[in-house]
Amino acid sequence: MTKRVHNFCAGPCTLPLSVLEEVRDEFVNYRDEGMSLIEMSHRAKAYDQVHQEAMGLALEVFEVPDDFGVMFIQGGATLQFAMVPLNLLRTGQSGGYVNSGAWGKGAITDATPHGDIYVAWDGADINFARMPQVDEINIEPNTRYLHVTSNETIGGVRMVDWPDVGVPLIADMSSDYMSRAIPWDKFDLVYGGVQKNLGPAGMAIVFIRKSILDDSNKDLARYLRYDIHLDKDSLFNTPPVFTIYLVGKVLKWMKAKGGLSVIEKEAADKAAMVYGVIDKSDGYYSSPIEPEYRSHMNVVFRLSSEELEKKFLAEAEQADLVNLKGHRSVGGCRASIYNALPVESVKALVDFMTEFRDANG
Amino acid sequence: MTKRVHNFCAGPCTLPLSVLEEVRDEFVNYRDEGMSLIEMSHRAKAYDQVHQEAMGLALEVFEVPDDFGVMFIQGGATLQFAMVPLNLLRTGQSGGYVNSGAWGKGAITDATPHGDIYVAWDGADINFARMPQVDEINIEPNTRYLHVTSNETIGGVRMVDWPDVGVPLIADMSSDYMSRAIPWDKFDLVYGGVQKNLGPAGMAIVFIRKSILDDSNKDLARYLRYDIHLDKDSLFNTPPVFTIYLVGKVLKWMKAKGGLSVIEKEAADKAAMVYGVIDKSDGYYSSPIEPEYRSHMNVVFRLSSEELEKKFLAEAEQADLVNLKGHRSVGGCRASIYNALPVESVKALVDFMTEFRDANG
Repeated sequence: MTKRVHNFCAGPCTLPLSVLEEVRDEFVNYRDEGMSLIEMSHRAKAYDQVHQEAMGLALEVFEVPDDFGVMFIQGGATLQFAMVPLNLLRTGQSGGYVNSGAWGKGAITDATPHGDIYVAWDGADINFARMPQVDEINIEPNTRYLHVTSNETIGGVRMVDWPDVGVPLIADMSSDYMSRAIPWDKFDLVYGGVQKNLGPAGMAIVFIRKSILDDSNKDLARYLRYDIHLDKDSLFNTPPVFTIYLVGKVLKWMKAKGGLSVIEKEAADKAAMVYGVIDKSDGYYSSPIEPEYRSHMNVVFRLSSEELEKKFLAEAEQADLVNLKGHRSVGGCRASIYNALPVESVKALVDFMTEFRDANG
Repeated sequence: MTKRVHNFCAGPCTLPLSVLEEVRDEFVNYRDEGMSLIEMSHRAKAYDQVHQEAMGLALEVFEVPDDFGVMFIQGGATLQFAMVPLNLLRTGQSGGYVNSGAWGKGAITDATPHGDIYVAWDGADINFARMPQVDEINIEPNTRYLHVTSNETIGGVRMVDWPDVGVPLIADMSSDYMSRAIPWDKFDLVYGGVQKNLGPAGMAIVFIRKSILDDSNKDLARYLRYDIHLDKDSLFNTPPVFTIYLVGKVLKWMKAKGGLSVIEKEAADKAAMVYGVIDKSDGYYSSPIEPEYRSHMNVVFRLSSEELEKKFLAEAEQADLVNLKGHRSVGGCRASIYNALPVESVKALVDFMTEFRDANG
């Protein structure tokens, strides 16, 4: 049997084993075409089927209404940090940003050279322990959009309610992408890198309200223009074929599992298992995040000392529970429990946490 | 045995079979890590080794001197069309562009919104049948660089001599990347998508003269900044792990073959085989490109009628010689004979061309 560890990596991370095996089996000679899929023209019939199917599944699985379109764009969420203001901020308009942690801050840093940007709420003062209440968000006049980060991968904090602030929302959903339903009427654009819940690194999926392209900036290189990517079905230039192919397979796996509502419930249940151990540990494990804002994807927790954390991580690795170390910028521990992480891996983790506490209490 | 056709696709295209088989064999459980390489953190030891090795090999195989650095950037050559002027054109400077065909024109189109751009030579009047002579290139005052396309994938025309025009050269080498030696002293920057000679689609490799970053534009989103990518060893954000891994394997294959000089000679020999059949056909096959400028990668040719071309393409496909159709914008036939296309495939093509002519003369 194939060796498989419990992989709690924050991304890239665990993908469904059945998908990996399928890819392996058809890798060298794709469906008897006499070549690998990655050797095929992106205009070939066999690839086009893969491409169109992946686009269709993205819209279907994420329950996206008809007035939105989908785009596959290289450069991850990070390039979207630039493309959002470049395309959407016109003269006299500004973009409001929620600073909810490392990724919210990244979006602000990268938007700043390309538009009139302001911080509509700043979580730094409360150490990013929660997301904003709606009445704490300060919207300035002439605001084109409010940019939010639905889930902070490093901080482990989650936006629970999407704020109604009188302007369209734009969300970076990279780290809880397609793990929760979206009220599309509140949004003009939703984006995320695929390398956590959806596939290998190398692409963002962007959903855009089609009507906003009437007024988007066209005075940009074509790769930076949403209208070009949408109009060309993400085939304006050579797309990242292998990534799209794999994302399509993961989406099919999600659909077969029962779709978004099943995935969303499973995510909540898996998260509750880990937070349950933390909360019942009498402070042996602790979460820096206020309970209602805790991420369903990235469970951040601490032990009483760095020394103990080191021991915890080393023994976890011995037990094939890997990548539980917190991000270098915050320390501690982090269990990333994305869609494809089996519930058995979460069980193995909570059992280990309980045993470790008993042995080192 | 694995079914394998002769694949003359213009890109993505043929990769070494041994590389594909290696990737398949280690795909699900990478070197007994208990996970696929694509499930691994881009900060993991096992991936870092892959990443550093690929960067090192890119510099080594392409014989790049120490004053240049290498970057892996998503978005293909097309995003580089924007990044070059965004980073390098400062106030009062302009960029000269050689319009040598579809890709030269693409570079011009995408640079125009982001800088003061002019056409230094235009091949449209001669139907792109050759590249410019050095004295035909018109360099304006305050020119920062001359941008050239080393090989036009669609037109099948090749820049043979790199023009000395008193300003640094920048080359898009996508379609003959790492198939020929580069006189680095003439260049400030060289880039190309990897999906032809080097790997699967989803990335450009950019070589940059490090000293020019002292004066590059820093007032850009970080993904668009060369200094950030170079400084962070192309790990500023999550890199396209699978693409880099595969490119590394192809570079290792190139090195084992004997390196750039062997590859360059083989490319010239393979091209000569096909042009030989064309030139000895008494006009049955014809090339629209002046002999000395003919591409070593994309051999474009016509038959006497579209009807005959259709028959040629259909019978070729029957003989497992696939993707010989010319680009939809120019019609005719095109044999792309990139580095990884075996000489046996070229032999099969020239035999087929000879037989077809004999049977349909």
